[in-house]
Amino acid sequence: MEITGNALYGQSGGPTSVINSSAYGLITEAFKHKDRIGKVYCARYGVDGIINDDLILLDETKDEENIFLLKQTPGAAFGSTRHKLKTYKEDGATYERILEIFAKYNIRFFFYNGGNDSMDTINKLNEYFKQSSYKCYLIGIPKTIDNDLVLTDHCPGFGSAGKYIANSFSSLAADASSYKAGRINIVEIMGRDTGYLTLCSALGQYKPDLIYIPEVPFDIDEFISKVEKIYAEKKMCYIAVSEGIKDKDGNFISALGAKDSFNHAQLGGVGAYLSSYLTEKGYKTRAIEFSLVQRSATYITSLSDQKEAILAGSYACRSALKGKSGFMVCFKRKPGQKYKVSCFLAPLDKIGGMTKLVTLNMLNSSKDNISEEFLSYALPLIKGEIKCLYADGTMKFSSFLED
Amino acid sequence: MEITGNALYGQSGGPTSVINSSAYGLITEAFKHKDRIGKVYCARYGVDGIINDDLILLDETKDEENIFLLKQTPGAAFGSTRHKLKTYKEDGATYERILEIFAKYNIRFFFYNGGNDSMDTINKLNEYFKQSSYKCYLIGIPKTIDNDLVLTDHCPGFGSAGKYIANSFSSLAADASSYKAGRINIVEIMGRDTGYLTLCSALGQYKPDLIYIPEVPFDIDEFISKVEKIYAEKKMCYIAVSEGIKDKDGNFISALGAKDSFNHAQLGGVGAYLSSYLTEKGYKTRAIEFSLVQRSATYITSLSDQKEAILAGSYACRSALKGKSGFMVCFKRKPGQKYKVSCFLAPLDKIGGMTKLVTLNMLNSSKDNISEEFLSYALPLIKGEIKCLYADGTMKFSSFLED
Repeated sequence: MEITGNALYGQSGGPTSVINSSAYGLITEAFKHKDRIGKVYCARYGVDGIINDDLILLDETKDEENIFLLKQTPGAAFGSTRHKLKTYKEDGATYERILEIFAKYNIRFFFYNGGNDSMDTINKLNEYFKQSSYKCYLIGIPKTIDNDLVLTDHCPGFGSAGKYIANSFSSLAADASSYKAGRINIVEIMGRDTGYLTLCSALGQYKPDLIYIPEVPFDIDEFISKVEKIYAEKKMCYIAVSEGIKDKDGNFISALGAKDSFNHAQLGGVGAYLSSYLTEKGYKTRAIEFSLVQRSATYITSLSDQKEAILAGSYACRSALKGKSGFMVCFKRKPGQKYKVSCFLAPLDKIGGMTKLVTLNMLNSSKDNISEEFLSYALPLIKGEIKCLYADGTMKFSSFLED
Repeated sequence: MEITGNALYGQSGGPTSVINSSAYGLITEAFKHKDRIGKVYCARYGVDGIINDDLILLDETKDEENIFLLKQTPGAAFGSTRHKLKTYKEDGATYERILEIFAKYNIRFFFYNGGNDSMDTINKLNEYFKQSSYKCYLIGIPKTIDNDLVLTDHCPGFGSAGKYIANSFSSLAADASSYKAGRINIVEIMGRDTGYLTLCSALGQYKPDLIYIPEVPFDIDEFISKVEKIYAEKKMCYIAVSEGIKDKDGNFISALGAKDSFNHAQLGGVGAYLSSYLTEKGYKTRAIEFSLVQRSATYITSLSDQKEAILAGSYACRSALKGKSGFMVCFKRKPGQKYKVSCFLAPLDKIGGMTKLVTLNMLNSSKDNISEEFLSYALPLIKGEIKCLYADGTMKFSSFLED
């Protein structure tokens, strides 16, 4: 017998430009299945909202505009958290509390939208529910600007951040080329462990001369010597660098020592650090950080990315209704010249906590720029532009948290 | 008798998102007057291109696409310069060299697109030509993100930078509000002497709690106390700050000592500086700099700003053809509820080197946020969105410098 009940959706980890598009896909799909799904809830601030009995009940009519605006709303519209569940052994009470809330609201379909740490959390929950007598279907919806989730061809969120980076890098370089006087331009891009985002700086009309990513050990002397050679030829040099570049021993080039609650090093300032090296040598330099704008600039969302984010949400809903549990929605490319993706499910225990790195074939032979292969991989993901709704010159965002 | 001859256009100072839209307006207008204007030249790197006999001759047919793309091209498409002419007394040879080049190319209409330093340069040239026997009409086209040119209601470039700032600030704040955990968010915005741009951070859906601009003397203790009060209430605080804020004695809060070639202090890092103060007090803070993206992100150009930039270019051309010389194109608002502008000419000697500051009526009573009056002033300037041409997910830019 097919199970019926209510659905719950939660967001976790750092937002992307399209995490709320996935919410839109999930919610609008859930509304289509009134025979199976009675009510649609969203957890306020992810798993914390469950633990705190703080759920938002959506109203298809009353919330119509707010739900529509999810497609252009930055941040995590329902609130996010960096809370990573401990194991059941370490903290059984939290699992029991979650079960209590699920039972209270008759939650039978649970969707968690996040990156690899969040997939670890939902995997643990799924294992717990499997061993309980409470029947519930749990599906993970991927989200990360870093593109570092394994098994899937790519992740929702990456394409839009990549589109921002490609266009902003190209625009900055066009701006810098306005002057005859030479300058070394360093742009620092997000990416603690992976360089996918930084590679996107090479997708626009103006491209970096040099790209440095965490996967390739960084050597300061080699860097200076390459920059000096390029500058001597062109009187200009454009550099893109990931925040998380490391030396051959794995030490972050710009380690600040601070750690976030997932126990990751908090980075920043590597561009300024490299710039100070070059300034000391007498070069005019400028370091720019895209910072959080690269994941929140929904005004330059990739249409392709948004469509796939919506698809991931709706596919998650349909999968749960088919009785699937313990999986994350993944993309694969269909064979053929023209870019097309299809969805499939991969087991959460093969994804949570894992990191997909940039592979050598994505880089040129000197490992300081992209290959043709990366170009073919990434271009379809940043393709197409969305039409945002503006009022008086600024974008309208949905607001659920303030209710 | 009406003079006929060739036209020359040059760009000077820091680029804006729409300086090339003014070029588009000027060039396309000049092409319409073949009876009076034979050839249209652009100086490569502003006045330096004249001195170096380095002009680009435009071809209406061959350059058609390149000219069309000017409307979405960041930077100064023909190259800019920070070269400020000395007086004739100090450096007569440069004036004579410019006259020589004008005569060589039969330049009878000269247009210089820039800010207050550039208007000073073209004013000096105009005075020189007036006293020579060489007949030539010189008109200044305004351009500045800072909005600090006097006599005009506002400047082309301000609206687009303002639109970027309003939307990016609002997006960043939406992103920051994703977490329950509190944070103090400081966004540093361009503006050495004037705070118009920083005030634009309050035009979007999410607004700053506090705004600090160069016109209002900055007091660090008052700042800390206001932030602490807001944070205690909301567990969050959003701050927008101009790079050029100063203390009551006029010292830059974040003075780095370096000067650019116009002898202005080179600033940057005031956001990080204020952030470090608050971090020491135990607050979680994040400082973000919009940096050069705010003047080069043509993907979020204000349609209103672009239209007016084109108008300023075409009006400059028509004015020169009417025999006007020694003026800059200005805007004034027409009376009535609905926003409409008209152009007029103001004498260059009343503009060059002057700076228009934010007036008190634009601020709230505690001088740390905007007034209704600023809202009415600025909203029409950021209104409307342009449709950019993209190929494979990234914008196409025109390229004249590489020819």
